[in-house]
Amino acid sequence: VPTLREVGELEAIRRLTAAWGEPAAARDTDPAGVRIGPGDDAAVLCPSPGCDLVATTDAFVENRHYLAEWFTPRELGARLAAACVSDIAAMGARPRWALHSLGVRPDHDVDALVELQRGIEVFVAGDGAVIVGGNIVAAGGLEWMSLTLLGEAGAGRAWTRSGARPGDWVAVTGWPGRAGAGLRLARSSGDEARRPGWQPLLDAWIRPQSRVSLARSLAATDAVHAAIDVSDGFAGDLMHLCKASGVGAELEAESLADPLLETAARTLGTSAEHLVFGPSDDYELVLAVDPAGREACEQVARDARIRLTFVGRFSGERAELVRRTPDGARQAFVMGGWDHFSAER
Amino acid sequence: VPTLREVGELEAIRRLTAAWGEPAAARDTDPAGVRIGPGDDAAVLCPSPGCDLVATTDAFVENRHYLAEWFTPRELGARLAAACVSDIAAMGARPRWALHSLGVRPDHDVDALVELQRGIEVFVAGDGAVIVGGNIVAAGGLEWMSLTLLGEAGAGRAWTRSGARPGDWVAVTGWPGRAGAGLRLARSSGDEARRPGWQPLLDAWIRPQSRVSLARSLAATDAVHAAIDVSDGFAGDLMHLCKASGVGAELEAESLADPLLETAARTLGTSAEHLVFGPSDDYELVLAVDPAGREACEQVARDARIRLTFVGRFSGERAELVRRTPDGARQAFVMGGWDHFSAER
Repeated sequence: VPTLREVGELEAIRRLTAAWGEPAAARDTDPAGVRIGPGDDAAVLCPSPGCDLVATTDAFVENRHYLAEWFTPRELGARLAAACVSDIAAMGARPRWALHSLGVRPDHDVDALVELQRGIEVFVAGDGAVIVGGNIVAAGGLEWMSLTLLGEAGAGRAWTRSGARPGDWVAVTGWPGRAGAGLRLARSSGDEARRPGWQPLLDAWIRPQSRVSLARSLAATDAVHAAIDVSDGFAGDLMHLCKASGVGAELEAESLADPLLETAARTLGTSAEHLVFGPSDDYELVLAVDPAGREACEQVARDARIRLTFVGRFSGERAELVRRTPDGARQAFVMGGWDHFSAER
Repeated sequence: VPTLREVGELEAIRRLTAAWGEPAAARDTDPAGVRIGPGDDAAVLCPSPGCDLVATTDAFVENRHYLAEWFTPRELGARLAAACVSDIAAMGARPRWALHSLGVRPDHDVDALVELQRGIEVFVAGDGAVIVGGNIVAAGGLEWMSLTLLGEAGAGRAWTRSGARPGDWVAVTGWPGRAGAGLRLARSSGDEARRPGWQPLLDAWIRPQSRVSLARSLAATDAVHAAIDVSDGFAGDLMHLCKASGVGAELEAESLADPLLETAARTLGTSAEHLVFGPSDDYELVLAVDPAGREACEQVARDARIRLTFVGRFSGERAELVRRTPDGARQAFVMGGWDHFSAER
């Protein structure tokens, strides 16, 4: 197994760039909008006329954001890509160009690094995007990987966190909380977490899906007033959106009942509600939906075969998160997301 | 001194984003081309019509790419920015938008982190660019910082490494080798390196300058066929350009004689030539200049008060680097740049 130290930096870069195919320089402008690909001082890209550029960056640190033994290098790359793609989806935009920055130990297997990059490449390719640049350096201590993803949206059309209005529906895609539950099971149960019954939780954690295609179809309905992705946890991210919009939210907590999380909660010694609303990076979308557009959004989700749950309503009570129980009682909701500097995950 | 662990991730992000001023969201489109600034899932930017987008990323690791005790946090941020700005300059482009990704220890002083970001901000502002996003995570081991910089060039007008032709002049800005010499002095002489005589070497290492304005003026002459920046070392980076262009180069080594590097070479127990051509990240520009345009380029450099030295000519001998001595002899040149995975700096 050749390591980075053995092959050297230039050869590693050569293998990484060779792995993502011919430089696009020969063609005037290829369909991916790449005029000059990796291998020069910078990539040269062709933005689409009439579009805004959307840019985000995210980073993972070994043991903090992932447990290496649970991921193949390709899955790891894909998950990092998923984190950035999710930010682009939350703007109602489409991803186009990615640049990675990797801090790896000198004894890192070069082939594994190529596989990790392939994971990024294949994931972003699912939405039509390509890797156009990158950087590798020798890390000291825990390995890390950072990705910057550029996307496009119609000029002035990108979703924000700040457009939710009182009366809008709070909607969320997928099964929030499952990724965090998968992680907690892996941490606490080891190989027990691999039994088939937990597979959907492990999948949510290890192999999150892109919501770009759904987001683009939802954007076309004009019914979405605001959006955020679930990267910290459903309640925490919803609160970010509420604060940015100057609204609150009132949720029917039972609308997100998840039998699998109820089982997992018993194994983990916690409550299903904590799993649904607490720390979890599901890369699902939380949306503020115009009441008049709810049906159109439901139709879009049905067509895409993606679960879209209407969980409650935004309210005029600034930054107040309230849950309504089946008997009609209103309870304040306090539940945070991750804090990588202070808290244990 | 409040640390990241004490204030928590959200508060640290709040201070970092507050430090770079009002979100641009309120304005429709501000002069910096920022429709939505930091604080949403992604930044939304307004590319200039008729321009290509130019994108690069670079990263520094503590002790590997910088010696923390020689830099204020602001100088460190500026130097990371300089590395990326240099890539954009080497494309003949102008920087516009930056996104950082920082891996810092939980006991990192929050104010120092704000200063580091300020260093990035002030440096890129010198060329009209702004920070539009970022990410901070807890590093395990050595700290690291990554920056992605986006710029713009006229459509199809960006310089590449591959346009040099036999007969073109090899030109270089500034005093190549001084940054590497400054680093070596700091490593070997400690505080002795701070004596006033070495100041230009320490400045080259600690406070590299932007070459964007010069590059833009040079680009306007239409005389530059190819370019690369000196991030590894003059000979090594020139060789990258030669390989990409399918040419060689023949240099008058004496044209880069640098009295200060001759003195430094004696102190360091090496040769001045090794310092000029060997490992050094000067963030200067190496250019292939059309012979007919040499005078125009010299005039541009004089107006900018930046040294531009014509060091020799590109040749048809593919990837062969040759030095010509004053007595006319031709000698092969073998000198590498950094290799962060194999070599000691």
